[in-house]
Amino acid sequence: MPFPYKKMTEEDFEQIRQVTAPERVWVGDAIAKEYYHDEMPEYGVYPPELYVEAENKDEICAIMKYAYEQNIPVVVRGAGTGLAGGANCKYGGIMLSVMKMNKLIRLDKANMTITVQPGMLLTDVAAAAAAEGLFYPPDPGERTASIGGNVITNAGGMRAVRYGLTRDFVRCIEAVLPDGSLVQFSSNVVKNTTGYDVKDLVIGSEGTLCILTEVTLKLIPMPKYTRTLVLPFNSLEACIDMVPKLLQMSAVPTAIEFLERELIDIVERNLHKMLPVKEGEAVLIVMYDAGSEQELINACNAAAEGALEAGAIDVCIADTPERIGSVWSVRGAILEGMKAESIAQEECDVVVPRSRIADYVRIAKSIGQKYGIKVEPCGHAGDGNIHTEMLRMEGMSDEEWKKGTQACLTELYGVAKEFGGQLSGEHGIGNGRLEYLKPFVGDRMYKLYQSIKLAFDDKLILNPGKIISFEQ
Amino acid sequence: MPFPYKKMTEEDFEQIRQVTAPERVWVGDAIAKEYYHDEMPEYGVYPPELYVEAENKDEICAIMKYAYEQNIPVVVRGAGTGLAGGANCKYGGIMLSVMKMNKLIRLDKANMTITVQPGMLLTDVAAAAAAEGLFYPPDPGERTASIGGNVITNAGGMRAVRYGLTRDFVRCIEAVLPDGSLVQFSSNVVKNTTGYDVKDLVIGSEGTLCILTEVTLKLIPMPKYTRTLVLPFNSLEACIDMVPKLLQMSAVPTAIEFLERELIDIVERNLHKMLPVKEGEAVLIVMYDAGSEQELINACNAAAEGALEAGAIDVCIADTPERIGSVWSVRGAILEGMKAESIAQEECDVVVPRSRIADYVRIAKSIGQKYGIKVEPCGHAGDGNIHTEMLRMEGMSDEEWKKGTQACLTELYGVAKEFGGQLSGEHGIGNGRLEYLKPFVGDRMYKLYQSIKLAFDDKLILNPGKIISFEQ
Repeated sequence: MPFPYKKMTEEDFEQIRQVTAPERVWVGDAIAKEYYHDEMPEYGVYPPELYVEAENKDEICAIMKYAYEQNIPVVVRGAGTGLAGGANCKYGGIMLSVMKMNKLIRLDKANMTITVQPGMLLTDVAAAAAAEGLFYPPDPGERTASIGGNVITNAGGMRAVRYGLTRDFVRCIEAVLPDGSLVQFSSNVVKNTTGYDVKDLVIGSEGTLCILTEVTLKLIPMPKYTRTLVLPFNSLEACIDMVPKLLQMSAVPTAIEFLERELIDIVERNLHKMLPVKEGEAVLIVMYDAGSEQELINACNAAAEGALEAGAIDVCIADTPERIGSVWSVRGAILEGMKAESIAQEECDVVVPRSRIADYVRIAKSIGQKYGIKVEPCGHAGDGNIHTEMLRMEGMSDEEWKKGTQACLTELYGVAKEFGGQLSGEHGIGNGRLEYLKPFVGDRMYKLYQSIKLAFDDKLILNPGKIISFEQ
Repeated sequence: MPFPYKKMTEEDFEQIRQVTAPERVWVGDAIAKEYYHDEMPEYGVYPPELYVEAENKDEICAIMKYAYEQNIPVVVRGAGTGLAGGANCKYGGIMLSVMKMNKLIRLDKANMTITVQPGMLLTDVAAAAAAEGLFYPPDPGERTASIGGNVITNAGGMRAVRYGLTRDFVRCIEAVLPDGSLVQFSSNVVKNTTGYDVKDLVIGSEGTLCILTEVTLKLIPMPKYTRTLVLPFNSLEACIDMVPKLLQMSAVPTAIEFLERELIDIVERNLHKMLPVKEGEAVLIVMYDAGSEQELINACNAAAEGALEAGAIDVCIADTPERIGSVWSVRGAILEGMKAESIAQEECDVVVPRSRIADYVRIAKSIGQKYGIKVEPCGHAGDGNIHTEMLRMEGMSDEEWKKGTQACLTELYGVAKEFGGQLSGEHGIGNGRLEYLKPFVGDRMYKLYQSIKLAFDDKLILNPGKIISFEQ
């Protein structure tokens, strides 16, 4: 243990019941097992000592004030859909769910913002905006995630190429610090140079610095027209070489994803979802949004012409909701397809400069071969974030799988670093990538991370053992 | 003094000469007086003990290593065009100029980025990008500023409405920490969830956390077409009410500025620069950029129609470089006009939610009247950042001016806070707004700022006494 945390007593349980409500507090074996882990049990399964569902910020302040005094660790949980082993009680203590704090506080049309509680689902935030003709662009795939979880992990997703990440849509944050103080990071303004930019530091901090109680998000006008192009190429290199060409055109694509034929085959074979393009070793799927039909047509025509010049075998245009849906359903089914194809999976979430995607993919596959592990890179060609899936095939022993994936990960992170990339593009560090962070960023940066953590959380009670460790 | 800094000795001077070069080190009275202050001498005039022009990152590491050991404060200076009293040696010590580190390191077309040293001028960065058909959008007016200064203050400017702030274009940073360590904050990738987002914390930190040695900036395709509309209204309210309507249209304006007639008169009377529109109590100037002519025409037509519906008296379209230049030259001459009109100026840089601009402007003027000070709010209607200029007219005593401006500022900051705004939108805190920050953000946030400062700079040697103070 990095710190002598208090083991919770009946008196502690009673105190938490008093500042919240007995019917929203569970202890010991009464806590449902699903709260022992997030979407990746591989990255940690730990029982909380107490599980509480907070209903408002006053309760959160009271819980934190008590936990701070008593030296009890607290882990905040949203929808539990994280992929880094972040929302588990690695050192016991309190699991604090914010899923009952799921209200829309206000939709401000004049300022084009929406203010919500952290437990509101991403899908409900997007729907509330759409009901007013407005658009909340971040779409990290998992729409049943909580918006607080999206903010605290800086969720990415496919539309990042045009619209940016969750970070780019967070106007301001209300949060509780580890000592129970309620604070505001910025306000509903477009720019701010008042003190340090704590808001951006907190975004992506995976629940280790503070607890969100309210977030205000920027909305934009709803794009009226959308089309998706499917561009098959004879080689991965030709496919990836097309990406900078698309980004240099005057219309910015909303999303640019790539799929290799092997992966398309896996999805088609296992899930019977069919891509409308049968040729090509590698395929780009490119989405455009626009405010007018003419603008959309211009963007698609320029992309199609450019692709054919660059050696695309064909250009398939999906322009009805059904066709668009069927193309994206193949992309969306990759993880499911790989699960059907294999008996276990491990994942690497590196990001590399866009110009190095093809090199990375080639090397990643050869690393997999070296250790007898099937490696399937895929994903966000538009931003260089390559989800490198490792598949455990039949006949592999537990030890072979464990040793093989660890060896692969170590080499893959080395390649990402050599290419000027990063360890994680959008899934975060959590508990799952903890051991890889220090060698990746180096001792001095790691020490700086530790100092930053201590600046917020001097007793190390908030989601301890995630992102950084204080153990030797 | 917040800390017992060392008074520099001849031995210290010699040490700095040795790790740099004697011909780039000046001490005592040999230091030019212009280095005693930034663009706002009102916010502090302090002589450095030593002034050195660094030529590379190794020199900066060596200077900081020595300063850290010896407890000598260090202030980094770019072009000295800051407006917050940031780049002055409030506690003596070393002024470290990075203006000799002004090289283009690389322009990476495949990744659409430019990597430069911090002393390169903003105008040279923009020109280097343009030479390759690419665009670096941030344009905070002062184009002779250094790019390092722009990053470390998160410079804003008029084009922020469409393109965002300097922050939005910083891909990665190389920097020296107060102890002399060289570190990297992110790399040339589009997304990153590897550890804490130190990059964004450092942007806008006004030289108090680290010293930039290299920055990599995102570029975008150069927009090919541009037009500017001038929209006169009968009242400020009608003028400001138009802003959300413009922002809800599908084409996002590049810039939206407002000017009241009184201010236009000041510029026309003093500088003989004429706005092509003579009517209206308040005027919006709206810029659109587009990748195609049709798109530009559509955007301008929609804005013109919407404005006429909303009560604009007229729509004047500037569509040649000369006409566009003459409209923006009036906007750009405001500060000069006010300087010609008055004998001294003080400035308030608040930002408020866009929906509160008209209320703020009305109240700001009445506050000025109350204290006998002429107050002229103007500026960025598109982002709520209102530069509230205070003018000292003939016949005011020094004491009247000082007391009056202080009383005005205190009330103006109170109004900004009440409206959910912030103390500074783009000019920063520096030394000039130091005393106003703590009451504005509250004790707990201030303490958090102090903890963050200490996490980077435990000896408080980097630009001490700026943004936050540790004095009682």
